[in-house]
Amino acid sequence: MVNPADLVNPADPAGPPDLVDHHCHGVARGPLDEARFLSYLTESDAPAADGTTFFDSQLGFAVRRWCPPLLGLPAHCPPADYLARRAALGEEETGRRLLRATGITDYVVDTGLADGLTTPEELAAAGGGRAHEIVRLETVAERTAQKAGSVREFLDGLQEAVHEAARTAVGFKSVAAYRHGLGFDPAPPGPGELGAAVGRLLAARDGGRRLTDPVLLRHLLWTAAGTALPLQIHTGFGDPDLRLHRSDPALLTDFIKAVRPTGCPLVLLHAYPYHRNAAYLAHVFPHVYADVGLTLSYTGARAAAVLAEVLEVAPFGKVLFSTDAYGLPELYVAGSRLFTRAVRQLTQAWADEGAWAAADAPRIAALLGSGNARRLYGLAR
Amino acid sequence: MVNPADLVNPADPAGPPDLVDHHCHGVARGPLDEARFLSYLTESDAPAADGTTFFDSQLGFAVRRWCPPLLGLPAHCPPADYLARRAALGEEETGRRLLRATGITDYVVDTGLADGLTTPEELAAAGGGRAHEIVRLETVAERTAQKAGSVREFLDGLQEAVHEAARTAVGFKSVAAYRHGLGFDPAPPGPGELGAAVGRLLAARDGGRRLTDPVLLRHLLWTAAGTALPLQIHTGFGDPDLRLHRSDPALLTDFIKAVRPTGCPLVLLHAYPYHRNAAYLAHVFPHVYADVGLTLSYTGARAAAVLAEVLEVAPFGKVLFSTDAYGLPELYVAGSRLFTRAVRQLTQAWADEGAWAAADAPRIAALLGSGNARRLYGLAR
Amino acid sequence: MVNPADLVNPADPAGPPDLVDHHCHGVARGPLDEARFLSYLTESDAPAADGTTFFDSQLGFAVRRWCPPLLGLPAHCPPADYLARRAALGEEETGRRLLRATGITDYVVDTGLADGLTTPEELAAAGGGRAHEIVRLETVAERTAQKAGSVREFLDGLQEAVHEAARTAVGFKSVAAYRHGLGFDPAPPGPGELGAAVGRLLAARDGGRRLTDPVLLRHLLWTAAGTALPLQIHTGFGDPDLRLHRSDPALLTDFIKAVRPTGCPLVLLHAYPYHRNAAYLAHVFPHVYADVGLTLSYTGARAAAVLAEVLEVAPFGKVLFSTDAYGLPELYVAGSRLFTRAVRQLTQAWADEGAWAAADAPRIAALLGSGNARRLYGLAR
Repeated sequence: MVNPADLVNPADPAGPPDLVDHHCHGVARGPLDEARFLSYLTESDAPAADGTTFFDSQLGFAVRRWCPPLLGLPAHCPPADYLARRAALGEEETGRRLLRATGITDYVVDTGLADGLTTPEELAAAGGGRAHEIVRLETVAERTAQKAGSVREFLDGLQEAVHEAARTAVGFKSVAAYRHGLGFDPAPPGPGELGAAVGRLLAARDGGRRLTDPVLLRHLLWTAAGTALPLQIHTGFGDPDLRLHRSDPALLTDFIKAVRPTGCPLVLLHAYPYHRNAAYLAHVFPHVYADVGLTLSYTGARAAAVLAEVLEVAPFGKVLFSTDAYGLPELYVAGSRLFTRAVRQLTQAWADEGAWAAADAPRIAALLGSGNARRLYGLAR
Repeated sequence: MVNPADLVNPADPAGPPDLVDHHCHGVARGPLDEARFLSYLTESDAPAADGTTFFDSQLGFAVRRWCPPLLGLPAHCPPADYLARRAALGEEETGRRLLRATGITDYVVDTGLADGLTTPEELAAAGGGRAHEIVRLETVAERTAQKAGSVREFLDGLQEAVHEAARTAVGFKSVAAYRHGLGFDPAPPGPGELGAAVGRLLAARDGGRRLTDPVLLRHLLWTAAGTALPLQIHTGFGDPDLRLHRSDPALLTDFIKAVRPTGCPLVLLHAYPYHRNAAYLAHVFPHVYADVGLTLSYTGARAAAVLAEVLEVAPFGKVLFSTDAYGLPELYVAGSRLFTRAVRQLTQAWADEGAWAAADAPRIAALLGSGNARRLYGLAR
Repeated sequence: MVNPADLVNPADPAGPPDLVDHHCHGVARGPLDEARFLSYLTESDAPAADGTTFFDSQLGFAVRRWCPPLLGLPAHCPPADYLARRAALGEEETGRRLLRATGITDYVVDTGLADGLTTPEELAAAGGGRAHEIVRLETVAERTAQKAGSVREFLDGLQEAVHEAARTAVGFKSVAAYRHGLGFDPAPPGPGELGAAVGRLLAARDGGRRLTDPVLLRHLLWTAAGTALPLQIHTGFGDPDLRLHRSDPALLTDFIKAVRPTGCPLVLLHAYPYHRNAAYLAHVFPHVYADVGLTLSYTGARAAAVLAEVLEVAPFGKVLFSTDAYGLPELYVAGSRLFTRAVRQLTQAWADEGAWAAADAPRIAALLGSGNARRLYGLAR
């Protein structure tokens, strides 16, 4: 039996909702046909191979498990029934019902991908929570490049935009993994190479100002580090734009060491299948944190097994819940349900076998679900 | 209690046998002494270290579990008893008894390693199944090189041999991982570099025409892609000829992207311990599939745990059963038993806990065991 | 209930203690305050991040589980109570009580890090076991460099020191992973490059004679190989001095192949999170062994899950127990308890489900706990 009330607080099923989703995106503005719905159930950029469907995946099964009951249908009902039901309710009502069953009290939204998505405020209002913003560095830089007439104008504009963003945002995000990979030179670029790289960027016309030059990507990271706000870095799997092996967070080690004196906390997002590497970095470096978003949603019935791997060497005060939900309110449900169940299952089992103290199980569960994020981003309870 | 009848159809123990072994080799002809038997129980090229035996391994224990009862001995009987029994029965009768207990209806045989092994037809006849052929590209090329007197003759001969093979084979296979590693230039080689590489190959005399030049290995891959038949690529572990880290399937990403427009499906074989990487590639690219052969046989009691990792992000319509059995009919038994038990154990557990719909468990089991392979290779039921 | 007597022999709880700790260090002399105690509970080089504590980790919880009862306190008592109790008992009595509950009969001690630590003899006396020495190559070389006035003097002195050490030590150890990474040229350095590298080392003054030149690190490995004693190589995780991805033992493949004719056994230490890669190398190369020390201690409640991954493709005659304990006697307790429980849990479960013969479970447990190490290092029972 699915009992939503049972699943919104990882530390205590009877307690109030208490999840901070420290990395998510908006939901798509309505109506979604089947093809578009399915496109949000995968990291692929293409329809499923002939004879296959994205519903036949751990994420597809997780959505079919948790969401239909929230819309008045039986768990695991046929996908067509579910899609018909959500169409009948409309995107807005569907979103409200699903989001309000997640237990998320704080939505920390990466606004770098905004096309056709709700704003942080709209998302939080639909879900009955609070909105916070994470500013994507590449988006800021590309927007600055659209307006800049000279290298100096770009660099000044970027500096100003990042520091302006830091007044209201709770952190920054880098997608250098997609744009170049993580094996870049760790040092801040010198003025000469930086000026040349900006020059090349500005010389590109129209759609050509996409930031892929590692010199510029490094400059963004160091600029953000100057604000001392937490800096989220995409690592591990994602859409087919990236090369998986170049997204291994271990490749960041020299950058992590170089940036350490600034005091800027680094949050390694996703990391799968290199999540043990991210956990190791969170272990040895005081300013590094590890996220489990995207990873737990996509691995579905395996979420506890994967989370357990993160909890091998990661300090328990350094691991953060998120959904990385994007487009579908269903992904908030799947991400939060899978996380809370996985946390409860693991911590309970470890307490039951005597490996952990009984009192530590809910205490650590609460850290993972919200406490660590509140401390890191400075969010009030 | 070992009950063979219980284990031949992953979707339904009471149903008819239904496994497509989409990647295997022949069994060894004629009497095997203990040393040769043991040499097939390992990927090592040497006898076991002093004081150790290859029987003391997950694969050794799996063979001791499943095979003795099929020859009238108790499970886990001493290896010497088992070897004596199979010697008394003879290789042929042993093979027939073991193969007919596997549930395999279709043997898709890589004929690239044929020395002293049965042909696909002999193998299928012994097992009571159907034979299909996978043609190993490097073998075709090396055979062509033996006869070619000029660069043109080699290139024309190769083109003709590959397209001739495509008329009857159901797919091709590349062992570029062994010969060079997978970090090769993804593009088809240009005529200049290709001609030079062929020239160097032909200049080598006698045993020297072994294909290791990445230019030639790439040319083979692109030639096979032109037929649009499925192309199997060795990835992950294997014998000590390879460098494990250069066999990571993630290294193929740029080739996968480059070959995508041809429509050629790519099947990433084995992949262990990079099987999550292979699963990821099968997730994001519509033309990529992931195999679990060799991996499940060698990990024995851990087969379900390893298969579960594959089933984290791989779409369920993209994962394929095989044994990669080679030399010993015992390896068909171990591979099929370990697979069917692992699939049934996982899917049943996920259905029991409500993560999957009850009806999805046998449906997905059937896809993994045979349905996906029939669709991919165009095999009749 | 914690029952120490239940946990000292992995093959048989009722049998005599029987663990060979084939890789460990001394314990710290004299009173440890909380900060120093905590510094030994992590691989980090810094205090825990604000708001977090190293006690909140799998290792911290493992220490809290196993150690308080050995000092007369309840398991999982508050850390402050435990620290007060051990302070009251004194370092020596604490060490004696803890070490004598581990079941370790042989301490094979890496003496390369000796500052403020007990000697092998002191350690063994406190624990009631036998002492053996592993000589760290870089320490020998740096000591030689302090005294050498010329390239020839250094090279002769090193050769003599290594061969002198081989008369009493049971093996050598390399920390090339920390000093350079494992992707070095596999061949022994030629006289020219070696002489130049030694010259650079000797030209460095005072604290500057730290060995980081890959030419020298390779020379050390080849010098040790000449003695044919087992050679331990640090691989995988460790303190933040290393780059995790450059410590992957797979990077050693060409060195493993090159050194094979010398007959020198190689022991891949730790290896996490690349422990499956180490297991693979132990599988395909007769002279390679895989260690589980450090890894099982740090992963705590997950020790059985991680050990199970090692036991996928590693031959059971090639896997070795160690604690890699350093500084705290608590780490010997955690390492031995976690190992023996993990081994017993896995082998019992595999025997119970019929995957292993019942008699093989204690037999393999005994190999992992001591038999393999006794055979490899030539230690009497």
